[in-house]
Parts: sequence; C-alpha cells; structure tokens
Amino acid sequence: SIGSNTVIQLAQTHKPKPDPNGLVFGTVFTDHMLTIEWSLEEGWQKPHIQPFGNLSIHPGCSALHYAVQLFEGMKAYRGPDNKVRLFRPMINMKRMLKSAHRACLPSFDCAELLECIRKLVEVDQDWVPHSDSASLYVRPTFLGTESTLGVKKPNKALLFVILSPVGSYFSTGAKPVSLWADSKYIRAWRGGTGDCKMGGNYGASIYAQYEAVDYGCQQVLWLYGDDHQITEVGTMNLFLYWINEKGEEELATPPLDGIILPGVTRQSILELARKWGEFKVYERYLTMADLRQALEENRVREMFGSGTACVVSPVGRILYQGENLHIPCEGSFPPLASRLLKELTDIQVRHQTHNTLHDIFYSPI
Amino acid sequence: SIGSNTVIQLAQTHKPKPDPNGLVFGTVFTDHMLTIEWSLEEGWQKPHIQPFGNLSIHPGCSALHYAVQLFEGMKAYRGPDNKVRLFRPMINMKRMLKSAHRACLPSFDCAELLECIRKLVEVDQDWVPHSDSASLYVRPTFLGTESTLGVKKPNKALLFVILSPVGSYFSTGAKPVSLWADSKYIRAWRGGTGDCKMGGNYGASIYAQYEAVDYGCQQVLWLYGDDHQITEVGTMNLFLYWINEKGEEELATPPLDGIILPGVTRQSILELARKWGEFKVYERYLTMADLRQALEENRVREMFGSGTACVVSPVGRILYQGENLHIPCEGSFPPLASRLLKELTDIQVRHQTHNTLHDIFYSPI
Repeated sequence: SIGSNTVIQLAQTHKPKPDPNGLVFGTVFTDHMLTIEWSLEEGWQKPHIQPFGNLSIHPGCSALHYAVQLFEGMKAYRGPDNKVRLFRPMINMKRMLKSAHRACLPSFDCAELLECIRKLVEVDQDWVPHSDSASLYVRPTFLGTESTLGVKKPNKALLFVILSPVGSYFSTGAKPVSLWADSKYIRAWRGGTGDCKMGGNYGASIYAQYEAVDYGCQQVLWLYGDDHQITEVGTMNLFLYWINEKGEEELATPPLDGIILPGVTRQSILELARKWGEFKVYERYLTMADLRQALEENRVREMFGSGTACVVSPVGRILYQGENLHIPCEGSFPPLASRLLKELTDIQVRHQTHNTLHDIFYSPI
Repeated sequence: SIGSNTVIQLAQTHKPKPDPNGLVFGTVFTDHMLTIEWSLEEGWQKPHIQPFGNLSIHPGCSALHYAVQLFEGMKAYRGPDNKVRLFRPMINMKRMLKSAHRACLPSFDCAELLECIRKLVEVDQDWVPHSDSASLYVRPTFLGTESTLGVKKPNKALLFVILSPVGSYFSTGAKPVSLWADSKYIRAWRGGTGDCKMGGNYGASIYAQYEAVDYGCQQVLWLYGDDHQITEVGTMNLFLYWINEKGEEELATPPLDGIILPGVTRQSILELARKWGEFKVYERYLTMADLRQALEENRVREMFGSGTACVVSPVGRILYQGENLHIPCEGSFPPLASRLLKELTDIQVRHQTHNTLHDIFYSPI
C-alpha cells in the first residue's frame, strides 16, 4: 500500500499567483507536485510532495512507447467560508483504479491516494482561486516506467499529481457549441478502452477535432455503429432533454456499455435529476435518426455536454450528413442546463446541497 | 526541415558490449541516442547525437497525458563483409510520417531523418553484433511535448532514436506459437488508429495478452467484426498458406483496410512470394469460419506471423470458442515459413538478393 509517511520538501521560491480571470485551462501550474514510485520488487514507495519540476524519464519508458498511462481530472473549490473542498474525489479514485487495472498498472488504496492528494492541495491551498468562477484543477497521472522495449506489464510505475488553477469554462461567454457528427472517426469501441481514462483515447481523438473545425464546428459528436448511435461530445458526456418516442418528458444519456466514459458530472446530473423526480431519467441508446425525427416533430428541448472542465455545455447545432440540425437553446443557456449548472455550482463552490445530495459530494481539505 | 548539421557529443565512457547470445529484446541500449526538438514557432532544431541518458520531461507533457506519441522499429545488420546495413529503412520513415500525421505531430523530411539515424548507427556501429543471429534494433520515437493540459495539437515535440542490440527471436528454439482467438478484446477498428504505430494501440493490448496466457496460449489472435475476421497476431501481421475455397494454392494475409498495421516484413513477404510466382498471393479477408472449414478439409498448409522482431513465426495452435484448432507445422518450422525466413535473412544479413529484390531492400551505413 501507499505509505502514509509523505515526505514533504517545500519549494524555496513561490511563483506569482495568476489573475483568476483570463486563466486558460491547464496552462499554469502550482509550486508543488506529488510523486509516488512503484516497483514490482518493492511495491509502493513513500509519497513525495516536492517542488514542481521536470521528470527524469528513461528513453525506453513504456509510457512513452506504448502509452502505458492514464489520468484523472477533478477540482478543488474555495467556498465562501474560505474552506477548500474536492468534489466527489472518491469517484475519481475508483475510476482511476479501474483504468489502472485495464492498463496493467498496479493497484493502489483509493483512500490512501486521496489522503496524499489532500495533503498536496493543503500545501498549495493558496493556489485555490478566491473566486466564484475559478477553481484548482487536480490532475493525477499514472505511468508505466518499465525501461525495456517488450510490450508487457510494466515492472516499474510512477504516479504523480499536478495542480492547475483554472477559470470558469464559460468566462468568455457561455455560447452553445456546434458539433460535427460523422462516422469517419470512432472514439471508442466494444472490446477497447473507451470506458477508461487512458491516454490513448485522447491522442487518437485530436485529428478528428481539427477536421470538425475544418467543417466549421467546434467539437466532434462521436457516433458508433451502423445506426449512428450518439455517444459523447469531444471529451464530454452527452445529455438529451426531450419528449421521447412514447411522449414522455425525458432526460437521456447513453448507457455505460463499455464505450462511454463514466463521468463524475454525468453521474451527478443523473442523481440530481432522479432526486427531483420531475421527468423520466434514462440511460439509453440514442441514434442520429431518433434525434432527427424528434427535431422534425419539435420534441427536442435541450442538448448539452457534461464534464469536470465545463460542468455543463449546451449544444446549439449539429452538422450531420451535410445538414445543419439546430438544437433549441433559449438565449445562450437553456433552462435545464442552467438549473443543473447552478445546482452543481452551489454544491461545488457554495457547499449548499439543498438537502438533495449526500455528504459524499464534497471532501473538505 | 531537420537541420543537416548534426551536433555530435560523444560519450566519455562506453558500456561493455553484451554477449550476442542470450540477449533479451530491448533490454540493453547503446552509448548514444539521437534527439531532435521541434516547436511551432521555430520548427525543427539541430539534431543532437549525445550520450544515452534520461530525458527531462515537463509533467504536463501531452505524450504522458494523452498519448500523443508514436514509434518505429527496424534493424541494422552486420554482413560477412563487416558492413552494416539497415533493412528497407525508407519504408519505416514513410510509415512514421503517416503516423505523425494521424497523431497531429509535425511533418519531417524522411531522407533527412534517415540520414540522422544513419549517423547515429555509424557512431554506435561497434554495437551491431558480430553474429549471424543478432542485430541492432533501431527505435525511433516521436512525442508531443506540449506542456499544457488542453487536448490539442502539440506546439512542441521531441523526436528521439535509441538503439538496442537484440538476439534472434528464435535463439531459444523456433517453436510454433499458440494463439487465443476471442472477440472479447478488439485491437483496432475502422475510424481508429490501427494502421499507425501509435503508442495507444500497444498499451491497450497488454491486458488481452495476459488473458491469453491465462488460457494457456502465448499470443492473442485479434478478431474483428461479427464474422470474426482474422486480423493480426500479438504485434505481428498474419499469413495463411492454404488451398483456398476455389482449390487454388494461396498465400493470404488481411488487406490494409485501416485496421491492419502495414508491416515492412509483411510487404517484403508479399513481394518475395509474388516474385516467385509459384502460387497465388492475395491480400484478402479471412474469417475463423474459413479457417475452421479449411482445417476440417485438410486445406491448411501453414500459418505464420511476420514482424521486424521475429521475421517469421509459425503458428501451431489456436484456441477458439473452447476448441483447440491445430495448424499443420511439419517439424517446428514448416517449409514455406523456413524458406521465407532464409530468403529474408539472406537479404538482411548476407546481403544476397538472389536477383529477386531491388536495392531498396538495404541501405548501407
């Protein structure tokens, strides 16, 4: 297990804190980082909190050649009480463990790792923005550091965590995104790794992202199968709020069948909407044909992506088979997306649960 | 373009050369490595040949988080004339360029990069084994080194090349391999990256490899689609030598339709066999049903994998749907596999072309 005796070496100099307005996602890092090494012979070594700096990596490292690597993403928020809290971090720890299993990286104790991360955030707590619209992004990363070229389970690994103050995804205005829906590129497939946060899923997606931009769209709507199932948007989960085929008011998102990333925001939105009990909430398959027919029959109310970075991001337009499908979005931020964003932000930042959610939604630092 | 003024900094100390017998693939590295940096603003920097050592990598590096990375593999052989030659390196350079395009890494001039690699092998030429059964494995690697966390085209990159003396794949005896054929895991899919040498393809395959071992097999036979198309073996291309459905003697391998890695050994085997003109040579789809029926009707002569590491590797058994399919392999190395191995080795090591192949098959150092 990961040792509890974290070695802390404080930075001698401190970088200036950035203006919380105008932060570009993941470009500024804090003064410290967490590193924990593992080897087959000796298991987990002592965690080290040390000054942020370059890693020294063997050029034969399996994370560099065979993408034996995974990551996580979560946020720490500063509340009006000045306390810093992580949003549902144990869900990220468990997903990280699942990714590690799939990547043939070693297991770890989720509670122990979270305690190390808590200490790191504590050391760098001055970096958590004093702002309603900004937070501290926490990026755990886990690498195979086997230094031989055989394609195999690594006998060495490095887990590290870096921190980055980030602004609101919507600081420049919450405009609905436009999507390019095409089956030319497939994000994930059954028997693959689409339900894990392994690096290979992301690097393989960049090319399609630029093709979407060439088509005048901002993100890719990833389709799957001959029936063009709707799966995810860019690096977000996707929700459709509509009157379904049975005439029911429904919030729908694709089920976790192996090709969908089990997003923490996705899960939180499902839990919130089920708690409200005001409309049906289903994890179900949705095809482009379903969507097109519903648009023709004026049954679509809203469509939005969900993720740690943006929380909720409305969809305004989908380019599909040469045709622009316009998704309703009253003003820039449609009512359900607004309500979800507000409730989630209240929980994350203002620590107000409205009695709808349990304490596991936040973890005090 | 990659500068021609390679900066060479020689190692002060030299590691002892290993015994060419008993080398384990990719575990020993030479005294030097090649590094070339690229940035969006300044393009390609001067190539550096420098002492082999760790890389200093920013912890936000996109190769570590999003697998913006690719590699190549080729071999340098020492001939009886004591000259060192690379086997068809320009094919590797062109495949590397194609992978770079798919990974959103920058373009490079193939001839310029090959010239840098030639210089590196020249500097470390004493590491090319004086042995018929060993060679120097050349591993180019190309990484996105963008140090911000947005999933995007990297604005910085690092191309490096390391060298490793490797033994014959068959030094411990050329026994036919056993394969686990199951559609539970899928190596690659249309719209993905299976035809490029991107790291993500390999890291995602390790888990299945260990499940194959659990089933008492050595490698995975990767299937695709509902009809269980035969695609590749482990990290090798696959050939079936049989009497096909039409009664023709045929050497068959799956076509390059986007999910098959375009192997240099694969291409060389196809060219050799077509030059012989003794039997049909087809790139075609093969399903497990085709194979099972052919086995029942005694129409299968041989099955073998091909790759840079092993050259040719016969298949002896396939575990499929709970049944062991036994593939004929007279002795340990069946006749066609033996003949191909000998002809390719003659070209690679002894530089004898038998007038069947062009000069592009080798590149003198």
